[in-house]
Amino acid sequence: MTTKSSNITRNAHLVTLAERVDRNGHGAGVLWFTGLPGSGKSTITEKLELRLFDAGYQVSVVDNATVRKGLSFDLGFSHDDRTENIRRAGEASALLARAGRIVLSGFISPYQSDRDNARKAIGDGFHEVYLSANADVCAERDAERMYEKANAGIIPEFTGVSAPYEKPQSPELVIDTETLAVDETIDLLVGYVEQNFQHP
Amino acid sequence: MTTKSSNITRNAHLVTLAERVDRNGHGAGVLWFTGLPGSGKSTITEKLELRLFDAGYQVSVVDNATVRKGLSFDLGFSHDDRTENIRRAGEASALLARAGRIVLSGFISPYQSDRDNARKAIGDGFHEVYLSANADVCAERDAERMYEKANAGIIPEFTGVSAPYEKPQSPELVIDTETLAVDETIDLLVGYVEQNFQHP
Repeated sequence: MTTKSSNITRNAHLVTLAERVDRNGHGAGVLWFTGLPGSGKSTITEKLELRLFDAGYQVSVVDNATVRKGLSFDLGFSHDDRTENIRRAGEASALLARAGRIVLSGFISPYQSDRDNARKAIGDGFHEVYLSANADVCAERDAERMYEKANAGIIPEFTGVSAPYEKPQSPELVIDTETLAVDETIDLLVGYVEQNFQHP
Repeated sequence: MTTKSSNITRNAHLVTLAERVDRNGHGAGVLWFTGLPGSGKSTITEKLELRLFDAGYQVSVVDNATVRKGLSFDLGFSHDDRTENIRRAGEASALLARAGRIVLSGFISPYQSDRDNARKAIGDGFHEVYLSANADVCAERDAERMYEKANAGIIPEFTGVSAPYEKPQSPELVIDTETLAVDETIDLLVGYVEQNFQHP
């Protein structure tokens, strides 16, 4: 990689999002995946990232494991701390989206108000994607037996068992992960991205 | 932008940093600009971003104004809060670098320990760049007359006046912004990036 001649000058300005979008050949924004534990957030964001990357997109995943180890390292699991965790996740997703990327953010994010705050932080290009599956189905898939531990009271305040999940009021997309296979879900999402993140 | 055939399958894995670097044609990492208020951090990161963007790099600026309005919205200016602000700035920079980007992070970040924590969060690819200029020179450039207000006690705990600045102990790069013009500085930094962020 070499730089262009330093004789080419233009007035200093900030690199705009439109210029980044032009460079990348696709729009930027956030697909915010919300749903119960076991609804498929990790599986879907990882597989979708791979598909989109292979198709040439500038794409990133932001997930709870990463955020909890880094940005939210200082936070616990009280209601306030969970809200703050989602706030930071929203801001981090916004930074990546403003860099021209498609961001796949996967968080239980059980409260509508927290998701609405993420929407505000990100602005245009925020897409709330609800991975719909009831707790019984999620518990069946649960290789780490978290639902079992939550039902036994070993894990307190577990979303879907002992803590509430507020279903999205007006998500951009609902995916029924009870009936759709993972591959079908990914195909559907790739189509959604192609349609909604076209180069303008 | 169209996706490749969904018949092309490969084993699911996470998109690696090496794959992102291959895609972008350059290495990823963080240039962490530290220095007194008025040492040139904003001017230099903005102009450098533009030059690198025009040369084809995937590049982002992370600056204090943006972080304070977003990720660090809840923080004040106590020593602890400043440390936490830099911690989050380091984590945010790390997220962008892991996405394959060159990140230009500009923060006074007066404490060596805070900068060392950013280095740890980011790992390989962290470059501490010290913008060296003494407080008198910085005060002369200060269009917002912050130094004057700090000297008058109107702004408390102002780095370089009433709060300490710890010079970097072993920065990757020192730039004397007292003697180098901005354009010379940018040329030097573009050369540094070409040398240190080559595609492997």
